[in-house]
Amino acid sequence: MESSTHTAAALAERFGLVLRGDGAAEIDAVATLAGAGPRQLSFLSNPRYRGQLAGSAAGIVVVREDDAAGLDRTLLVARDPYVAFAQIAALFDPPPVANPGVHPSAVVDAGAEVDARAEVGPLAVIGARSRIAAGAIVGPGCVIGEDCVVGAGSRLVARVTLVRRVRLGDRVLIHPGAVLGADGFGLAMDAGRWIKVPQQGGVAIGDDCEIGANTTIDRGAIEDTVLEEDVRLDNQIQVGHNVRIGAHTAMAGCVAVAGSAVIGRYCLIGGAAGIVGHITICDRVVIQAMSLVTSSIDVPGEYSSGTPLMDARSWRRSAARFRQLDALARQVQALDKEKT
Amino acid sequence: MESSTHTAAALAERFGLVLRGDGAAEIDAVATLAGAGPRQLSFLSNPRYRGQLAGSAAGIVVVREDDAAGLDRTLLVARDPYVAFAQIAALFDPPPVANPGVHPSAVVDAGAEVDARAEVGPLAVIGARSRIAAGAIVGPGCVIGEDCVVGAGSRLVARVTLVRRVRLGDRVLIHPGAVLGADGFGLAMDAGRWIKVPQQGGVAIGDDCEIGANTTIDRGAIEDTVLEEDVRLDNQIQVGHNVRIGAHTAMAGCVAVAGSAVIGRYCLIGGAAGIVGHITICDRVVIQAMSLVTSSIDVPGEYSSGTPLMDARSWRRSAARFRQLDALARQVQALDKEKT
Amino acid sequence: MESSTHTAAALAERFGLVLRGDGAAEIDAVATLAGAGPRQLSFLSNPRYRGQLAGSAAGIVVVREDDAAGLDRTLLVARDPYVAFAQIAALFDPPPVANPGVHPSAVVDAGAEVDARAEVGPLAVIGARSRIAAGAIVGPGCVIGEDCVVGAGSRLVARVTLVRRVRLGDRVLIHPGAVLGADGFGLAMDAGRWIKVPQQGGVAIGDDCEIGANTTIDRGAIEDTVLEEDVRLDNQIQVGHNVRIGAHTAMAGCVAVAGSAVIGRYCLIGGAAGIVGHITICDRVVIQAMSLVTSSIDVPGEYSSGTPLMDARSWRRSAARFRQLDALARQVQALDKEKT
Repeated sequence: MESSTHTAAALAERFGLVLRGDGAAEIDAVATLAGAGPRQLSFLSNPRYRGQLAGSAAGIVVVREDDAAGLDRTLLVARDPYVAFAQIAALFDPPPVANPGVHPSAVVDAGAEVDARAEVGPLAVIGARSRIAAGAIVGPGCVIGEDCVVGAGSRLVARVTLVRRVRLGDRVLIHPGAVLGADGFGLAMDAGRWIKVPQQGGVAIGDDCEIGANTTIDRGAIEDTVLEEDVRLDNQIQVGHNVRIGAHTAMAGCVAVAGSAVIGRYCLIGGAAGIVGHITICDRVVIQAMSLVTSSIDVPGEYSSGTPLMDARSWRRSAARFRQLDALARQVQALDKEKT
Repeated sequence: MESSTHTAAALAERFGLVLRGDGAAEIDAVATLAGAGPRQLSFLSNPRYRGQLAGSAAGIVVVREDDAAGLDRTLLVARDPYVAFAQIAALFDPPPVANPGVHPSAVVDAGAEVDARAEVGPLAVIGARSRIAAGAIVGPGCVIGEDCVVGAGSRLVARVTLVRRVRLGDRVLIHPGAVLGADGFGLAMDAGRWIKVPQQGGVAIGDDCEIGANTTIDRGAIEDTVLEEDVRLDNQIQVGHNVRIGAHTAMAGCVAVAGSAVIGRYCLIGGAAGIVGHITICDRVVIQAMSLVTSSIDVPGEYSSGTPLMDARSWRRSAARFRQLDALARQVQALDKEKT
Repeated sequence: MESSTHTAAALAERFGLVLRGDGAAEIDAVATLAGAGPRQLSFLSNPRYRGQLAGSAAGIVVVREDDAAGLDRTLLVARDPYVAFAQIAALFDPPPVANPGVHPSAVVDAGAEVDARAEVGPLAVIGARSRIAAGAIVGPGCVIGEDCVVGAGSRLVARVTLVRRVRLGDRVLIHPGAVLGADGFGLAMDAGRWIKVPQQGGVAIGDDCEIGANTTIDRGAIEDTVLEEDVRLDNQIQVGHNVRIGAHTAMAGCVAVAGSAVIGRYCLIGGAAGIVGHITICDRVVIQAMSLVTSSIDVPGEYSSGTPLMDARSWRRSAARFRQLDALARQVQALDKEKT
């Protein structure tokens, strides 16, 4: 983290916030409400932490107008305190900038093209016909295969693999262990044995996407697997071949998306949810954690599957009855019919 | 992809297909029905794409006999169009062949044995007493520990780890980020602290297996974890210690198989399904996506668990009733008893 | 595995076990009951293997008092045979000891501090201000970023990534592909686009923790993500930012823990279970495989969600009825009301 000092007045002006209290109040770090000291800035966004506001020693707090009433301390009032906090916190943790040059331990194919303003870290490998654009950072231990593009200002943190035919837009951020462009899982059964279906497509990642640690995105079978701009994937997500994910969609960790699924824009997919193959989900759909989407969704809204958590003894009783549910429903119908 | 040109007549003869139309029609690539041009070959296998057939500009289409009727274009009729397509597509994307030799940046233990016809890529590490057979490819950034075998013609694409005592058969294909031979998860609780149970077995992978990106297969506790021949695992699958998977079984992404489970031959395990430990599944079992197998299965067929996706509001009502299901069933029984 | 020979009498004395039979019986390996020969030691702990005891050729068997009755062979009677077996097996598979020194192919930042008694393997990378303590092993292909600590006697097996600000205690064991300290998944939506919330915390891992292959543990947003001592995580587990996991808790493979969840001590989390964010689980809670925890738990015990596995045809009937469950319950209430 970088060391720098900011006054409440300067922050208000820079980020378009409303100042209450002492404009000369200085901070040189951010912190949680509970943990902040007088030279630190904190924020209140999630209402469950409202109780911590009164006792917080934070020098400045970013709040919503509603939460500001009656507080006798230095505040920055924001329409969305979480957004304002994110912007202020970034002052102390600016994203790394490329330190141009190729580390001597990296192995770069003679047919690869690395811009003079790009950084290639120690022990990275770059394959034939791949191109690393200006300002891009290829971190330590990354392996980039053939026919890939890393767009301007993109960053592969460390140990990322782009297997083949992977094209990243600009400002894409990929975390360690992610694998983009591995063979899609295409198999045909022939005379009792599997034969492999060649995977001749690529992967196309739009500008400003973020891909989490150990997430995998397979190459398309014929055409590309596509993430539109500003898609945000958390860790350990699996995206099958020929999937298309719309702009601004975000997925929490461990989601599994099967081949050829098409997902709309501004969707939110909860952790460990599953999406089967060859279906379409429209824009602005929210899928709850660990739910399974088994058919297309064409109405925006929130969807769930599964059953609630119960103590194991009660659960076993409900689960046993689930097996008999059709018989139970028929019994009720019969009773209903007989009652007259 | 390689560039090559093939006529309809030549393809028909080479792969045993029935030619309809112009045997001299030439193609030099494959494509989807919707995307194909006149010098490309496409196929129809999944009935949901049948509507695209009439409008497709493909020069040649591979179809089933049933779908060929009344079509006035160049066709190759196949018993299984997907198999035929896979074979034809492979003409344009032949698997890479070992480029013999050890890259100067690789670190090979003096006690390892690398066949002169094997390829060891940049920045790979090969440990003591490990053996790389003829025609094998160990890609960039792979780490092979001690006492491993990579069989003839096998390929570790990049950044694959074989930890210890991992023996691969011939023509095994492993995608980046996969980890084979890590310690099985063996723990015993002793006086309030965990102690580690040594994992002295290995991993044995049969011929023609394929292992997906970031998939993990642990070493056995005493004996080996075993995949029989032609097992196909997609990405991010976890296989616990001492599991045994029968020949020709395929698993979609994100499946979790707990220790000592035994799975039969020709099983199909859907994405994100779970299989608990110490159970046995017979041959030819199909498990639906995200289902959990909690006890042995000895009848072939298709199995499921879970509940269907619903809009969240309706789901909350059903879920609340699930908690009370046993009481509901008792109430129905009482009503049924009282009715006479 | 090391070769060494031990008598029943010596093992009994060393580990505080009760000897029955021939104290001079010698073994030089461990094995399963079914696979053991006369110079091998086996054990019986899981009752499902009791039937194998009579036929086992093992030279020595470790058993519970209850199982020892009437057996005319050399036995070591233990309160917990699995613990005793783990201790005896470790004689044949001692954990590796650091071979001090830095491999010439490793890339160590001038500002890093590597203890002279630590081992840094081939092609490892160690970043600025990171410290590797005495007896630690950083295996081949590991990448350690800036401001990290690897405590005394800890071992990163191979290809482990510590991204930034990750502090490991002593004797921590991390398996290949694990990624600790990647950015937490923090996003705020601003005018229709995501903006990234800086992740300024770190990861703190207590003494004696074990982290499985391809497991990911993100850095905290402001404060640290914390694992207390002796936490045991299997493979492919995802731990979000600011999670806290209590001492001696163990998780099976593929568990997903969302951000800011707090999990108690001595919990057992089953495979592929999910835990949503911002909740608290008390000590000594057991979560069954693939269950989803959606709210805080303050009573120790065992918890489940989901439905049992069924043949797919029956399942479809039950699943259809689950959708109508609220209507069914209302119908039953109406019938119950009308009956009088």
